[in-house]
Amino acid sequence: MNIFKEAESEVRSYARSFPVVFHRAQGCYLYDNKGNRYLDFLAGAGTLNYGHNNPILKKALLAHIEEDGIAHGLDMHTQAKAGFLQALRDYILIPRGMEDYVAQFTGPTGTNCVEAALKIARKVTGRSQIIAFSNGFHGVTLGAGAATANRFYREGAGINLQGVTHVPFDGYMGKDTDTTKYLDKMLSDNSGGSDFPAAVIVETVQGEGGLNVATAEWLRNLQKVCRKHDVLLIIDDIQAGCGRTGHFFSFEEAGIQPDIVTLSKSLSGFGLPFALTLFRKELDIWKPGEHNGTFRGNNHAFVTARAALETFWKDDSFAQEVRHKGEMLAQNLKRIASKYPAGMFRPKGRGMMRGLECKNGELADAITTKCFEHGLIIETSGAEGQVVKILAPLITPEEELKRGLDIIERSIAEVLESDKVQAAS
Amino acid sequence: MNIFKEAESEVRSYARSFPVVFHRAQGCYLYDNKGNRYLDFLAGAGTLNYGHNNPILKKALLAHIEEDGIAHGLDMHTQAKAGFLQALRDYILIPRGMEDYVAQFTGPTGTNCVEAALKIARKVTGRSQIIAFSNGFHGVTLGAGAATANRFYREGAGINLQGVTHVPFDGYMGKDTDTTKYLDKMLSDNSGGSDFPAAVIVETVQGEGGLNVATAEWLRNLQKVCRKHDVLLIIDDIQAGCGRTGHFFSFEEAGIQPDIVTLSKSLSGFGLPFALTLFRKELDIWKPGEHNGTFRGNNHAFVTARAALETFWKDDSFAQEVRHKGEMLAQNLKRIASKYPAGMFRPKGRGMMRGLECKNGELADAITTKCFEHGLIIETSGAEGQVVKILAPLITPEEELKRGLDIIERSIAEVLESDKVQAAS
Amino acid sequence: MNIFKEAESEVRSYARSFPVVFHRAQGCYLYDNKGNRYLDFLAGAGTLNYGHNNPILKKALLAHIEEDGIAHGLDMHTQAKAGFLQALRDYILIPRGMEDYVAQFTGPTGTNCVEAALKIARKVTGRSQIIAFSNGFHGVTLGAGAATANRFYREGAGINLQGVTHVPFDGYMGKDTDTTKYLDKMLSDNSGGSDFPAAVIVETVQGEGGLNVATAEWLRNLQKVCRKHDVLLIIDDIQAGCGRTGHFFSFEEAGIQPDIVTLSKSLSGFGLPFALTLFRKELDIWKPGEHNGTFRGNNHAFVTARAALETFWKDDSFAQEVRHKGEMLAQNLKRIASKYPAGMFRPKGRGMMRGLECKNGELADAITTKCFEHGLIIETSGAEGQVVKILAPLITPEEELKRGLDIIERSIAEVLESDKVQAAS
Amino acid sequence: MNIFKEAESEVRSYARSFPVVFHRAQGCYLYDNKGNRYLDFLAGAGTLNYGHNNPILKKALLAHIEEDGIAHGLDMHTQAKAGFLQALRDYILIPRGMEDYVAQFTGPTGTNCVEAALKIARKVTGRSQIIAFSNGFHGVTLGAGAATANRFYREGAGINLQGVTHVPFDGYMGKDTDTTKYLDKMLSDNSGGSDFPAAVIVETVQGEGGLNVATAEWLRNLQKVCRKHDVLLIIDDIQAGCGRTGHFFSFEEAGIQPDIVTLSKSLSGFGLPFALTLFRKELDIWKPGEHNGTFRGNNHAFVTARAALETFWKDDSFAQEVRHKGEMLAQNLKRIASKYPAGMFRPKGRGMMRGLECKNGELADAITTKCFEHGLIIETSGAEGQVVKILAPLITPEEELKRGLDIIERSIAEVLESDKVQAAS
Repeated sequence: MNIFKEAESEVRSYARSFPVVFHRAQGCYLYDNKGNRYLDFLAGAGTLNYGHNNPILKKALLAHIEEDGIAHGLDMHTQAKAGFLQALRDYILIPRGMEDYVAQFTGPTGTNCVEAALKIARKVTGRSQIIAFSNGFHGVTLGAGAATANRFYREGAGINLQGVTHVPFDGYMGKDTDTTKYLDKMLSDNSGGSDFPAAVIVETVQGEGGLNVATAEWLRNLQKVCRKHDVLLIIDDIQAGCGRTGHFFSFEEAGIQPDIVTLSKSLSGFGLPFALTLFRKELDIWKPGEHNGTFRGNNHAFVTARAALETFWKDDSFAQEVRHKGEMLAQNLKRIASKYPAGMFRPKGRGMMRGLECKNGELADAITTKCFEHGLIIETSGAEGQVVKILAPLITPEEELKRGLDIIERSIAEVLESDKVQAAS
Repeated sequence: MNIFKEAESEVRSYARSFPVVFHRAQGCYLYDNKGNRYLDFLAGAGTLNYGHNNPILKKALLAHIEEDGIAHGLDMHTQAKAGFLQALRDYILIPRGMEDYVAQFTGPTGTNCVEAALKIARKVTGRSQIIAFSNGFHGVTLGAGAATANRFYREGAGINLQGVTHVPFDGYMGKDTDTTKYLDKMLSDNSGGSDFPAAVIVETVQGEGGLNVATAEWLRNLQKVCRKHDVLLIIDDIQAGCGRTGHFFSFEEAGIQPDIVTLSKSLSGFGLPFALTLFRKELDIWKPGEHNGTFRGNNHAFVTARAALETFWKDDSFAQEVRHKGEMLAQNLKRIASKYPAGMFRPKGRGMMRGLECKNGELADAITTKCFEHGLIIETSGAEGQVVKILAPLITPEEELKRGLDIIERSIAEVLESDKVQAAS
Repeated sequence: MNIFKEAESEVRSYARSFPVVFHRAQGCYLYDNKGNRYLDFLAGAGTLNYGHNNPILKKALLAHIEEDGIAHGLDMHTQAKAGFLQALRDYILIPRGMEDYVAQFTGPTGTNCVEAALKIARKVTGRSQIIAFSNGFHGVTLGAGAATANRFYREGAGINLQGVTHVPFDGYMGKDTDTTKYLDKMLSDNSGGSDFPAAVIVETVQGEGGLNVATAEWLRNLQKVCRKHDVLLIIDDIQAGCGRTGHFFSFEEAGIQPDIVTLSKSLSGFGLPFALTLFRKELDIWKPGEHNGTFRGNNHAFVTARAALETFWKDDSFAQEVRHKGEMLAQNLKRIASKYPAGMFRPKGRGMMRGLECKNGELADAITTKCFEHGLIIETSGAEGQVVKILAPLITPEEELKRGLDIIERSIAEVLESDKVQAAS
Repeated sequence: MNIFKEAESEVRSYARSFPVVFHRAQGCYLYDNKGNRYLDFLAGAGTLNYGHNNPILKKALLAHIEEDGIAHGLDMHTQAKAGFLQALRDYILIPRGMEDYVAQFTGPTGTNCVEAALKIARKVTGRSQIIAFSNGFHGVTLGAGAATANRFYREGAGINLQGVTHVPFDGYMGKDTDTTKYLDKMLSDNSGGSDFPAAVIVETVQGEGGLNVATAEWLRNLQKVCRKHDVLLIIDDIQAGCGRTGHFFSFEEAGIQPDIVTLSKSLSGFGLPFALTLFRKELDIWKPGEHNGTFRGNNHAFVTARAALETFWKDDSFAQEVRHKGEMLAQNLKRIASKYPAGMFRPKGRGMMRGLECKNGELADAITTKCFEHGLIIETSGAEGQVVKILAPLITPEEELKRGLDIIERSIAEVLESDKVQAAS
């Protein structure tokens, strides 16, 4: 691994948790250069919902490349783009009553589509303030980073971040406090302390923030507050979208219709860089090129994303399967947690975005380290890294999910046993 | 083209200049879905230095995909990454005495590697101000966008951009004023008006800014001023790098050694999203994951980028060829300009980053529109879009470069003729 | 009044509520240029705690001027300053166990001593964020203005205000929510959404914010949270200090010891511009002149302020009298409110900083307008101007306080009667 | 001096240069508490243009206080205010063709009237950026402080200052460069690097910046550039105004008409805190109270300011006398400088705002220290404190001015002699 130490920046992060050199990947498995196989419960931090090198997508991509399909075309019209847009409309937007949404292809990163979302919200409203939430994560470029709550990233900016007021997410002030009421009061009150905002940006399930789930009711209340005050609602669906919660959009369950939606991560279906910002046509007051970026139309991603939509979203069967597996995960996590004293483990999440909050970050870290020893790739999230987070590919067979859960269960037991031994000695 | 109007945001830009649907591309040619061929003097705004679907790179990419090579691995160690890092060291860094530089793979967009560059500069120095230049373009996310001079993008931010002071670029205050002296005075003087900066960020040739070329002497003076005041020097080589000026890095000619370098656009060689920030190892005080991003290790790009380095940068022959073609372009542009009254056209640029500054943006626009009618894809740049910019793939055969120049020459003649006719009528 | 319309900016405000030309003033009375007398329940918005032209202070000031005492001496040492500093130590700081506090004479405005307080807090901690509260008012220059909650002032800034996070004041989220717990959580939690702050700035009674009173317990909890997290506590005592609540400092009742205190308004005792920032000596890391201002040592104010301290603060008798009168005001306001349906009027405040919250701003405005017709000068406060605010000079005789209350009571009756008549017609 | 060390913050500054306790002051003299007399060439940093305790002003003030004239009335109409406004119109505005200007009484500090000026400029134009100049000083609250160039104050802010772009003042880039041309280019050019500004703020003579004088031509060019681009022109006349340069406004000589003017320091004539922002009536779009402050109508200052206008500005004789004395100062400074090698001393300034730039700050400091030993109070200015600055009261008799110059001349000689002796030993 010399070359990495020698030539790559210390900023690398996941490489430290999984200190091997990966080589190939298929479905829910990664293989290192020594031929070892790993079950992947990280899936590119939610980027590989359809698994590694999904054969249908792979076939479409290979065909495109072989026939010299456009790889890079800035934001020019291409057949690949037309194909994706048509599939997006046919399989996603129209069935969900969202036919009046347009897609902006931003630079192909999550943070970039958030930057675009915040910009268009500011431009449309003429206001500059944004409301975001405790534990929210929206990226690390300075515009999106201002909406990210975690001080680790904020301090990394090296300059004061501005233009965002954070308010408590659902449940942050305890079960009995509906924090949308506080937001409503702040917006109603001329002297509540926040500048009147352009928009609210929220994740329905906070992935990096520790699998905090907003209830459907809270989301509906949030939408009500936004509409009441004429504030735009942005759902950042970068991690929770693309089927992860059991619907294409994570907000479908709540029955809300955000003004702006950001999508990235699993959107290409193949792990290729891709991002888009969706918004209602009436908000589309961009001037040509006002937000730009060299890679804003990744044609390879258009090809695989289209194939993914056609393969998994023609009807509800895939979504149903995800919901079913999600339920299975939930029950097992509940069962595992119940084996231990209250406060040790708490099951969290929604759909196939699940995990166990551990009593502290050290415990969570010990568990994921142990899991890796047993051939399972899994990571933590949350402000203190205290949540063991399962982000398995949605296509992972049920038996493999169960095998992964077994590894987690075993690793927990081993870690706690070893703690006990240490404490006794 | 209905689907684009219906489903894509008004923000699309190049699509308006070239209103056809592209389908395939090879080398220096693009083909639309009706089979028409276009000579490409835009090359993905400098992203396709080795041409579209370069066969060697394509072969490497197909092989990687076929054998289920990792497509997406966050920042984990992969063989593809190791291969790229090794090639980068062997063919680029070591031969240029830059073996003490490390690479940070940022989100795969130019703006993201600029954000990382500014962050690390701020972190290392503990200062937050950055010096950038008139007509500089560094991206449109809020951190990089603050360094971008053009008000069109600045106003698009919808919020005050901060942390950057702009000073005049080489030549901005006339031929006789060395603007590095002004910078030196500002930095020396406790009351010059700029907060003491962490870093200076500069393009050696301002691509979007209108092909303004910094002389080698000015760059050396700039480096001297930076070193004198212990301010970091960042070269944004996103557009001018990767061989465009006749050397891998655009600053080689000046013999300087910047502290930080940003690379993107043609780095993958295939048009795939890819970006990195290079800096001297002693600056590498990042904490793991402090700057992150889902797509920060685009493995497809590692594969093609490595193949590109191995193919084009094993020795100086390719660079020589680029310098030769660049000279040819320069002579022809000079010849064309000399056919018209002084002030009408002015040749600009360096290496194969060349163009004609027209007396105004309308003229430049009319010329590129006419070029497209004649089958040439070419765009303008500059604050007023007044520069017809040639960014042909570096691998474009000389005869095709000449054919493109002929189209430009003819288009100019036709536009001016038609103006005369209109003026007469 | 022509000259005002002709020559003074539209920004004038109180002049609109009291459209006469004032001429003389004595004790609790103002006289206009036609000889009409007005009872003053505004007292320069809390600046004239000892009444207009208090004879003892006046005598001291006249003597100083007559003998050519220094009027203006920048921050040079003068006898007047020495006299004030000695009195401040002897009668205020030492008896309250605050002998380790030093005084910084800032520009002689409230907003300026707040700017100094925020600066020193940022300088000492090396952090830039400040926590302020809903409905807080701290001034309108950009630094202090960022801490002011009211959007009317914030929007007047014409630029994004920065560096301050607002959290809910005591009672803002309902009686049952201790908002210091939310603050504690935000500070404990690395991902709560606020950058870790240098200081918390708070008024114990929010004067401009509508006479919202922080309980002693809440203030103690606030101090606990600050100490727990090593965050400085700033009490902005500009309006509530100098005896207004029945103690020299408004925070004495709660038994807390803030790190920094701002004083202005009634500090000179005579209505002369004067302000200071008090802080513990260990925080005094200012470099000479680092915060400056031409009028930062108003010697006339030193003279009157010293006389005020010697006259009113040698023992507790004046403070007792204020508490007694405050109680009388409270009882009467309670009595008046109880005459009307619940929700119509709500007594608010502490000490001699009292008022009636009306069901809306229009009602409050009608009442104060009617009061003025009856010879009483009184104003409203609160985000909607919904609170009729009594800020009578502390030296106002009890019978005059009662006369003022009678006018208020009568005005309320007349306003509501007239409303009824209007509604019936 | 114990009490100051014990009880006053380390921020005190002038007190360190003149370590005595002052007691009385008359005309151009200060007296310490031991009866020593000092000639005052500092005059409250330009606040005492009419001398200490000017008898006419003193008489008016005593009368006002004795008859219980209003001391503090917020922004209510008072007879004192009416009297001042009338005098301002009659003796200042109307004779100068400025009858369409209105006065806003801001908080009574220079920094506060600058904050108001910047706010109204931003409000009127809807733009937030301001252009200020190298070496400009406009105050230290965060809004005005952002326009101040000196890093000593900027860094004292403890937070990034924003909203201001600094450009080089007249002469900053050498004699041959007209820096208004650079400004013109920046404003004309969409990509010059500054956001399009609301206003330009400038001092005609930079007092704190080191007595840098803008030529009349440069000021006229600056006005032309502002008008061409529809940018407001703010003259900060706080130090150079009120007669200091030989005209009431410092910009009269150049024949320009700024949109906004700030006045403070000598405006009250007596050293009392006072400040106003003047602007053309059409810019007066303030809402009532949108910029406020407790001491915004200092009635004592109204009284003395009116007396000052009536005494000194009824005709041009006082101004003529100032110009005459200014000339005398200029000739003497030139003579003194010429006694020493070139580069050692350089005379600077305009009117009675004059000084000697020394080759470095240490020399200047040694000279003023020596002057104090000889009974002359005088200070330095400039980024490095390198300018010995004469700000004598304008009413200083010519023989006293000469005596002061003698002290300076002698002190220089002594300092240089002692240096020589030290160098020799």
